[in-house]
Amino acid sequence: MRAVIPYKKENAKSRLSPVLSQNEREEFVELMLRDVVSSLNSAGITEIDILTTSSEGVPEDLDVNLIVADPGLNTSINSYLQNVDEPTMIIMADLPLVRSSHIKKIVSYPEDIVIVPGKGGGTNILFIRQPKDFTVKYHGCSFISHYEITEDLGKSRRVFDSFLASIDIDEPHDIVELLLYGNGLSKEYAEKRFCAETGKGRVKISPLSKLSGFI
Amino acid sequence: MRAVIPYKKENAKSRLSPVLSQNEREEFVELMLRDVVSSLNSAGITEIDILTTSSEGVPEDLDVNLIVADPGLNTSINSYLQNVDEPTMIIMADLPLVRSSHIKKIVSYPEDIVIVPGKGGGTNILFIRQPKDFTVKYHGCSFISHYEITEDLGKSRRVFDSFLASIDIDEPHDIVELLLYGNGLSKEYAEKRFCAETGKGRVKISPLSKLSGFI
Repeated sequence: MRAVIPYKKENAKSRLSPVLSQNEREEFVELMLRDVVSSLNSAGITEIDILTTSSEGVPEDLDVNLIVADPGLNTSINSYLQNVDEPTMIIMADLPLVRSSHIKKIVSYPEDIVIVPGKGGGTNILFIRQPKDFTVKYHGCSFISHYEITEDLGKSRRVFDSFLASIDIDEPHDIVELLLYGNGLSKEYAEKRFCAETGKGRVKISPLSKLSGFI
Repeated sequence: MRAVIPYKKENAKSRLSPVLSQNEREEFVELMLRDVVSSLNSAGITEIDILTTSSEGVPEDLDVNLIVADPGLNTSINSYLQNVDEPTMIIMADLPLVRSSHIKKIVSYPEDIVIVPGKGGGTNILFIRQPKDFTVKYHGCSFISHYEITEDLGKSRRVFDSFLASIDIDEPHDIVELLLYGNGLSKEYAEKRFCAETGKGRVKISPLSKLSGFI
């Protein structure tokens, strides 16, 4: 069993630019990657491939294999899958709330494919028992795409219903969930910069500097 | 075992006003309430109390008990809990993605309290085995409040991690999840008004009228 994590550091997470500078976003994605690798390791998955367009952004101390591929998420993952002979988990790098308990559960199901939906129609994790047969289609409403691809292939399928695993950190309000439910390096990083602000409706984030101005 | 649903129809869901008129929002919350009651019934919970400030907004054909209380969510629920002698589920009316399978699972746990977190720090469902001992504290970051109240009472606690149960329909982008994962009356209602629009990032909703303009 192995896992593959598509990863891009340079100018990553542009939708977080209203609250984090480019440097901060690049530091932040690296910490999220570390959290994901740590959860995989704790769940017993140690064969981890990082699929990236440049080896430079991947921290050298991580015990992972680097696969440098041309840009294009779908093309690079689909080429990757053609060369894999064992059950494989495709897991995004921006899922710091995924715990080892989620990973263990996902790989324990008997179905051919496990799909973990993300907020807004995304696919956060795909676990595929026979990767050679499968093609991915990320972007757009990828949950529906993967659901249908599974159907077309006549594969058995399970949708894994988890709030924590649904939260990819993409937009500023996602950081609220990280502050509330996180337990790793990226949570620590967010805590140094933001606090949760309550009011009418959902909790929002506030920059900590806003508060320190009063001191 | 019983369930209580706080409910307000008049000018409900003001944060949906960018995409639905007041009349539409009032129709929509009624359909979401029907979906929630239907899931409870399918899970075998038939003793359902609707806690409301005015009996007028509650559909007469629903097989529920009406409890008219003064405004104030926390005060009214806490008074209610004082008078209940059996395990009780407090479930919000804006959770059309909660299925009977979720309800069955929640009530099957042995813990004193089950907390179902909602997006942005909220509490979507609370299942309380001994309601007389408990006080609720909604608004703000109620997940943390309920977590701490449970701790202070020395009660055993479980957090129920579900993507579908985390989605309260409060803001326009929540309707995307209803379109994708809904299966009841409120989904049908949303489908007549919106479609899912894909692009860069998460799926968004578009009013259907925008499309019908081209025909």
